[in-house]
Amino acid sequence: MTRIAVDAMGGDRGPAAVLDGALQAASDEIVPVIFGSSELETRGLAHVATTQVVGMDEKPADAFRTKADSSLVRAVKAVADGEADAVVSPGNTGAILAAGLVHLRRVTGVRRPAIAVPIPARRGPSVLIDAGANADCRAELLLQFATMGAVFAEEILGIARPQVRLLSIGEEPEKGNQLALEAHDLLAASDLDFRGNAEGRDILEGAADVLVTDGFTGNVALKAVEGTIWTLLDSLREEITASTAGALGGLLIRPAARRLRARLDPDTYGGAYLLGLRGLVVIAHGNSSPTAIANAIRLAARGVDHDVVGRLAARLPQEAKIV
Amino acid sequence: MTRIAVDAMGGDRGPAAVLDGALQAASDEIVPVIFGSSELETRGLAHVATTQVVGMDEKPADAFRTKADSSLVRAVKAVADGEADAVVSPGNTGAILAAGLVHLRRVTGVRRPAIAVPIPARRGPSVLIDAGANADCRAELLLQFATMGAVFAEEILGIARPQVRLLSIGEEPEKGNQLALEAHDLLAASDLDFRGNAEGRDILEGAADVLVTDGFTGNVALKAVEGTIWTLLDSLREEITASTAGALGGLLIRPAARRLRARLDPDTYGGAYLLGLRGLVVIAHGNSSPTAIANAIRLAARGVDHDVVGRLAARLPQEAKIV
Repeated sequence: MTRIAVDAMGGDRGPAAVLDGALQAASDEIVPVIFGSSELETRGLAHVATTQVVGMDEKPADAFRTKADSSLVRAVKAVADGEADAVVSPGNTGAILAAGLVHLRRVTGVRRPAIAVPIPARRGPSVLIDAGANADCRAELLLQFATMGAVFAEEILGIARPQVRLLSIGEEPEKGNQLALEAHDLLAASDLDFRGNAEGRDILEGAADVLVTDGFTGNVALKAVEGTIWTLLDSLREEITASTAGALGGLLIRPAARRLRARLDPDTYGGAYLLGLRGLVVIAHGNSSPTAIANAIRLAARGVDHDVVGRLAARLPQEAKIV
Repeated sequence: MTRIAVDAMGGDRGPAAVLDGALQAASDEIVPVIFGSSELETRGLAHVATTQVVGMDEKPADAFRTKADSSLVRAVKAVADGEADAVVSPGNTGAILAAGLVHLRRVTGVRRPAIAVPIPARRGPSVLIDAGANADCRAELLLQFATMGAVFAEEILGIARPQVRLLSIGEEPEKGNQLALEAHDLLAASDLDFRGNAEGRDILEGAADVLVTDGFTGNVALKAVEGTIWTLLDSLREEITASTAGALGGLLIRPAARRLRARLDPDTYGGAYLLGLRGLVVIAHGNSSPTAIANAIRLAARGVDHDVVGRLAARLPQEAKIV
């Protein structure tokens, strides 16, 4: 039985969507614990009443300092206190990171936590790390991210010896900015199965099991992929419905389009792992649907079952410790 | 009458595709001049015989130094010598940059040339700059890129007072890496119509007329958008053809899908401008089709007609000179 602390007040859609998702995910194995206003109707789910809410646009440090009784901070702290096995929040990413750093603390040897996002790539699922926790990085950090991404790929995606690539601007080792060039050398000298550089076009195609980059590039690239998917599908629908034959064709391809949407929809995974802390944190999309929240909770439970935090703690000191 | 020097030996498809494209573009106004092997059959087009070829994977500095009689270097030099008004090459981007820096030299006040790529965004065409010429940048460079991008948007895209945004990881001014934070301040204090940060998801949607970023982020993001488009359209075709109804629907939506492909196809623009030099350089995709080459040649001719180089030289010293 896995207890998942769920921050019901974070996110853009309000607590109703989060509660619906938590109810979907609740099972004999998964016990969601709702953190939020005492006025919430949690329909049988365990409930911890909190009095404050962290807004999506609040400055993380301020929010963390002034809102100790927020659903976000309390849900993270519940993992530190052993009241929950993992936490899921669709809230302010920076505030989740701040709360995690203080209440959960870092795994020994980890310099900075990083966000690992599962990518529904064409050749199979892969993981992009860091997707936004660290805007400015040094090369040593990227080596740690790659190692954490490899543990994620093994335990969550079930890939035996994950192949790692570095996101850069050309496949040749000498292509890249200063950070990428240095990271390339460190990765090549590591015990990871490093396969060289990948480019932006490889993200959705799927060039590697683990794609490592700094949090600025990773965030821009991830949003470029996501935005392009939705802009393109919307544009296609507009073009199709502009003619009668097209509209009929659109009806006939609808099942195919739905299968594709289901595979690419971020809701399918529901969230990203914040890796490197002594407790499991899953960050859900801010505008998560109930299905996305349910999948994020299941993703968190999977991480608990596979002891992702313990595996990271066991591997990082050997492979990528920064002294 | 505009004379365009065309590097026929560069690129991945060989000289035949380039020649076909040059023939397509040739008109009363546009005179392509083919630079390439004496054995080429140029079918009536002007021909300058060259003896060397720069490979796509050659190191730019080496290629430039050892291949003065390559089609690439000679075509760039033709602009410097007044034998052509602009140059188009589908060849090695780094070598084109190196040849441009030496033979054409920079516009006074320009620290580094940058690559400006037209993006067929949903809300209308926009320009992304820098798409890959400068992997490591300082904030002052981004201000220059933005100014060059604005001139491009005015003269080539026909936008009267282009809106500029900075590619970053959140719309709030305090979101970004160190470079983005500093560039944000410089852009906000400039005479440009700066509208704040944009995110990766805005690239294809079209959040601004000019999207400015460093060459590493820009290259990764541009390739992420391009790659996602083709991966997604391929995946959709696979899903559609997996069922009979879907295959029939696919036939009915084909005209719509073709319109969308035509709009998004990089061939529609054919190339990117290398801005900041005292001569006009258009870099075509390495695997350009004849249509892409023809459009790249027309894009170059348009830049000559609108005196993009002169306009840059007139504006940069005032607006974004780095002393």
